[in-house]
Amino acid sequence: MHSKYNRAGFLKGLGKAAAGAAVLGSAGLAGCKPKGEGATAANGGKTYKWKMVTTWPKNFPGLGTGANRLAEVLESMSGGRIQVKVFAAGELVPPFEVFDAVAGGTADIGHGAAYYWKGKSEAAQFFAAVPFGLNAQEMSGWINYGGGQQLWDELYAGFNLKAFACGNTGVQMGGWFNREIKSIKDYNGLKIRMPGLGGEVLRKAGATVVSLPGGEIFQALQSGAIDATEWVGPYNDLAFGFYKAAKYYYWPGWHEPGTAMELLINRKLYEELPQDLQAIVETACRAAYTEMLAEFTARNNAALVELVKKHKVQLKRFPDAVLKTMGEYSQEVVAGIAAKDAMSKKIYDSFLKFRGQAVEWNQIGEEGFSLARSLTA
Amino acid sequence: MHSKYNRAGFLKGLGKAAAGAAVLGSAGLAGCKPKGEGATAANGGKTYKWKMVTTWPKNFPGLGTGANRLAEVLESMSGGRIQVKVFAAGELVPPFEVFDAVAGGTADIGHGAAYYWKGKSEAAQFFAAVPFGLNAQEMSGWINYGGGQQLWDELYAGFNLKAFACGNTGVQMGGWFNREIKSIKDYNGLKIRMPGLGGEVLRKAGATVVSLPGGEIFQALQSGAIDATEWVGPYNDLAFGFYKAAKYYYWPGWHEPGTAMELLINRKLYEELPQDLQAIVETACRAAYTEMLAEFTARNNAALVELVKKHKVQLKRFPDAVLKTMGEYSQEVVAGIAAKDAMSKKIYDSFLKFRGQAVEWNQIGEEGFSLARSLTA
Repeated sequence: MHSKYNRAGFLKGLGKAAAGAAVLGSAGLAGCKPKGEGATAANGGKTYKWKMVTTWPKNFPGLGTGANRLAEVLESMSGGRIQVKVFAAGELVPPFEVFDAVAGGTADIGHGAAYYWKGKSEAAQFFAAVPFGLNAQEMSGWINYGGGQQLWDELYAGFNLKAFACGNTGVQMGGWFNREIKSIKDYNGLKIRMPGLGGEVLRKAGATVVSLPGGEIFQALQSGAIDATEWVGPYNDLAFGFYKAAKYYYWPGWHEPGTAMELLINRKLYEELPQDLQAIVETACRAAYTEMLAEFTARNNAALVELVKKHKVQLKRFPDAVLKTMGEYSQEVVAGIAAKDAMSKKIYDSFLKFRGQAVEWNQIGEEGFSLARSLTA
Repeated sequence: MHSKYNRAGFLKGLGKAAAGAAVLGSAGLAGCKPKGEGATAANGGKTYKWKMVTTWPKNFPGLGTGANRLAEVLESMSGGRIQVKVFAAGELVPPFEVFDAVAGGTADIGHGAAYYWKGKSEAAQFFAAVPFGLNAQEMSGWINYGGGQQLWDELYAGFNLKAFACGNTGVQMGGWFNREIKSIKDYNGLKIRMPGLGGEVLRKAGATVVSLPGGEIFQALQSGAIDATEWVGPYNDLAFGFYKAAKYYYWPGWHEPGTAMELLINRKLYEELPQDLQAIVETACRAAYTEMLAEFTARNNAALVELVKKHKVQLKRFPDAVLKTMGEYSQEVVAGIAAKDAMSKKIYDSFLKFRGQAVEWNQIGEEGFSLARSLTA
């Protein structure tokens, strides 16, 4: 995914795209009607009116709607003591000013993904997605039980922010291509839209990496201005209609193996919250992690079937040799972050240690089961 | 896992075992100190004092401690308006009376797994674990976005119960064996502890399937009374010390590919709760799903390393041909449930439809990524 290089374009482009996509869920802030004992705000409790800024176009499927749902859950669990107004990207601040807006108090909370803040710290990217890194289940393992949360707290404390993992897309797709990828040489001169660390990896392979906002991708692909693009996965990609502009849909999405979403909260605000509201914020995020991942998992299934059966999309797997080379380049790119400063090194070391153990367990756990199931499915 | 055939033994055996295992987390019910606006109970709100009965030995790692954490989260998010006293298996009612205790009002809520209630309805097992069924991420997809929750509600309404998915172990291990499994014939006459649907599958393969409570397994395995056993995964199995009694540790755990835990709540109680407390119960469970899975994922990693490096455990994969046959037998056993009644058929159809799509997506999504990562890891 990522859509971070052209602020105005991101807004405009994605805004258009979202309008064309299925709008799911609802902003539904008026839908919260606490009753009975729940209406504690009326009993003398302080009411918090929060502005939530997001990096997502309004009601963007899965991500924007996930932020909307989070707002609803905060309101309903607090019996209305927390009231949240959700701002889509650009409504209050541009998407890539969400971090500063929450840190500075222009907004109270923010919903996005930590790789958008690499300008603040390259190491922030470890809390969103790392090429050949951790899948959704493992990211949650590292953050909740592998020391990740403590490192995230340490990194963000200097910015007056507190963050929680608050959603995950699961493994994304490798992207849409108008040329077949048979060897690493096929990346030489390939014009591809791929932001972030994945883009840096492709540059090593000789690709011409461009950054386009979501809404401009389709036309660029159709006109031949680019040969390939990544976006998210079947659920979001179907809505964008990429199958009309590219022949091949490649997997797996090695560059974003389980992208974690992030809730940002102004640290001073968070620390001054009563203990029950602190628990409500933390737990709502943990629940959102389950819920968003469930939505992507369920809807990717159905969208993939539609792409292949109805739209006759050709699914292609990157050849082993290509994946191996990308894996090596990824290690170099990621190691480059560790070289930036001591804090980045500390996060990198923790992430890599967890990853090593996670790969070993995954091979006999989730991966082992998946392969066994595929034998008879 | 499963430990359901000998009530007294389960209590005694697992109680003992848990005492020997690392006791993690804390009951910590006194640790909740709402302050400020959080203390709404003092502001005229009704306080709910709930008894939570569980199917777990006291503080049993991952599962019992997960139930304890859930109690703490319910208390802290409600600012003390919900107070929960957790009862380990047998403290208030025997573990397999949890369902009836919550339905009848002896207890208010219960924590366990739905496959324990197959005596009430065979179809309940779909909401816990199905051999060659769904992994943790997919189970959550089916329950939250695939119609599973609605079916669960429909099934349990007749019992005056409401249930939420409230934790997951992830893929379990195939078990500990003192004989190598080279072909399906090696199951002929094999004495193995394997409860539930997995046990029914092994019976088809000619195994002598026994059911022993957790605490009796070690001795049975060491004495040769049984040749093999399944339990959970590296984290729990290390604590039980099985590596001292069996040579081979087989994978993958085809019989429990992502066992969902369950919170039961008395339906009448739930329906009468104010809306904010309903939201708190539902969200706490969804968060517990993330948290328990994160704990198992992180701790299985570390335990596996210890089993292999320190205790020199021999990891073995079931041969493809064995897995294929188990897959076929599993389909027959699971289809047998659908034949029981119309409601079971409805749940089976929904589960199978979701599974079909999930397998297709998983092969290019999570599985596809895992295999790509393994190329360079």
